[in-house]
Amino acid sequence: MVHNFSAGPSILPKGVFLEASKAVVEYKDTGLSLLEMSHRGEHFVEIMQEAQNLVKELLGLNDDFKVLFLSGGASTGFYISALNFLKTRAGYIDTGTWSSKAIKEAKRIAPIEVVASSKDNQYKHIPSIPSDLEGLDYLHITSNNTIYGTQFQDFQALKTKQICDMSSDIFSRPIDGSKFSLIYAGAQKNMGPAGTTLYIVNQNHLDKDIRDLPSMLDLSLQIEKKSAFNTPPVFPIYVSMLNLRWLKDNGGVEAAEKRNAEKADLLYAEIDRNSLFTGNVEHKDRSKMNVTFTLSQEGLENTFLDLCKQANIVGIKGHRSVGGFRASLYNALPLKSVQALVEIMTFLEQSHG
Amino acid sequence: MVHNFSAGPSILPKGVFLEASKAVVEYKDTGLSLLEMSHRGEHFVEIMQEAQNLVKELLGLNDDFKVLFLSGGASTGFYISALNFLKTRAGYIDTGTWSSKAIKEAKRIAPIEVVASSKDNQYKHIPSIPSDLEGLDYLHITSNNTIYGTQFQDFQALKTKQICDMSSDIFSRPIDGSKFSLIYAGAQKNMGPAGTTLYIVNQNHLDKDIRDLPSMLDLSLQIEKKSAFNTPPVFPIYVSMLNLRWLKDNGGVEAAEKRNAEKADLLYAEIDRNSLFTGNVEHKDRSKMNVTFTLSQEGLENTFLDLCKQANIVGIKGHRSVGGFRASLYNALPLKSVQALVEIMTFLEQSHG
Repeated sequence: MVHNFSAGPSILPKGVFLEASKAVVEYKDTGLSLLEMSHRGEHFVEIMQEAQNLVKELLGLNDDFKVLFLSGGASTGFYISALNFLKTRAGYIDTGTWSSKAIKEAKRIAPIEVVASSKDNQYKHIPSIPSDLEGLDYLHITSNNTIYGTQFQDFQALKTKQICDMSSDIFSRPIDGSKFSLIYAGAQKNMGPAGTTLYIVNQNHLDKDIRDLPSMLDLSLQIEKKSAFNTPPVFPIYVSMLNLRWLKDNGGVEAAEKRNAEKADLLYAEIDRNSLFTGNVEHKDRSKMNVTFTLSQEGLENTFLDLCKQANIVGIKGHRSVGGFRASLYNALPLKSVQALVEIMTFLEQSHG
Repeated sequence: MVHNFSAGPSILPKGVFLEASKAVVEYKDTGLSLLEMSHRGEHFVEIMQEAQNLVKELLGLNDDFKVLFLSGGASTGFYISALNFLKTRAGYIDTGTWSSKAIKEAKRIAPIEVVASSKDNQYKHIPSIPSDLEGLDYLHITSNNTIYGTQFQDFQALKTKQICDMSSDIFSRPIDGSKFSLIYAGAQKNMGPAGTTLYIVNQNHLDKDIRDLPSMLDLSLQIEKKSAFNTPPVFPIYVSMLNLRWLKDNGGVEAAEKRNAEKADLLYAEIDRNSLFTGNVEHKDRSKMNVTFTLSQEGLENTFLDLCKQANIVGIKGHRSVGGFRASLYNALPLKSVQALVEIMTFLEQSHG
């Protein structure tokens, strides 16, 4: 077996791939591939509804929340979130690459205030949320940074609206939906394959008349059209639905949180124990999804990568912007993959330390 | 076998479904599903390049043209095309639903002039393009209307820029790319499954400084990032690539045009011959992709639909906004499916005419 530590698109359960694969040839006993069916037909309408219901059920969301599967990735979400919520001024927490991009897109619409940043510390920690957020339309946070390997360990209930880009850790743990006006997340980590983006919107927090919005970027209109204003990305939504079913059958987000903690604890313990490796970020803000680390002894990088390759470990090179290593431990990654990686790290220390 | 006349998402070749299905379980001999691979890895980069090259090769486009596979459907294309090309005033040909929607999205940016329309004739024909288009940033046309069943039979070389929504007939016939500044097309007819949208851009006709553009809607930036500014919709692009390979292996767009003409001629001949059926649109503007027709004798609709069902013919109900029937004859639909439909029409006349 291959141990797939890719940061996204990333590992999904084998059973999901097998069932999705069947539907590409024939969906149920229809004689048709899922790919050649009308998105207005009963089969896909059922898939969409089940996917939306699973999101609400898994996250324990009440009926104030509407669930959309749109397209364009979180990069479109940066712009959509601001278009639909930003009137005069919004606050952003800057935790590196993804929040910087979110800030850039929002600034096209109205002024942005960076209310906290860990830039001066090379994004090695998650800054505190200031208590005074008065006058801001919302606070925007990125729950987990895939590149630096930092993560908000919990979320605060704020007096202002809270918008969260949860692309890389949604469905990895329970959340309290009532803290958020909008959560958005590209599918390709814990939800499904690339090609759809989840929007969880508290419909009471939307102002339909905020501005003249292009139809495809208008959350109120997309809610009205039940996430099918135009032809939705059928297959990515179907695979996401299958994966959410798998998550439900495996104890939901509560059980996922335990499994993810076990995997992260094992790997961080080895990083801290092993004299050759150093973790990149402050302990309190370490991400359970993306573990970033470096080799403290020079010249061993290729040896380590070769050993990983021999052990069928893939996807552990760090992001091109920061270097080093990154092991992504998304929901579908089994514990034995982490054990395999830890074995290599231990072996490297024994043979080269 | 099922005869799939769906208007989109629509039939693709069986071989494409089989190969795509395999990749969902394991791509080549990597031990990994295509869905769990990095979009920056060698495998997907190759897929993207092959898909882009196939578009250029099949349509005979020179290097002025850049090929992008974005997301959001043609509905996002309505807005993107105007955002990237509309400065002060543009002309639109109104041939019904899709062009009306394109006009609606463009109007958010600058004034639009409807330079020709067939609205007064219930969109039963394609209006002529006026000779005087001076002062317009571009002329926008919809090459084929899936709902009314009309189609531009050829394209004019204009002095002004020409933008075409070619969602429902791209790759069905040869085109002269030099007539267009931008062609865009949702994948889910002749190109692939739902979830990606093709943009063919003459890069010399783009003004990078036209306005402050959100990154995801900025064609110049998407060109610079080789259609991978963010994670592209991997699987829809892969299936599109497989389908374009199939088209190339089957004689390209020239052979497709002949096959499509044969299918359309057969069905229109039956509509004109059969006393029970009437074609919806003017003969000269009949679409070879979407054949729309009605029953001229009342009360036979359900009988006809039942007969179709018994013969495994699906997807021939007309669009909900116009009623009647619609048979979509996209590239992958075999002649024998049209023969099966014609047989039912003939049988209905013999038994109930």
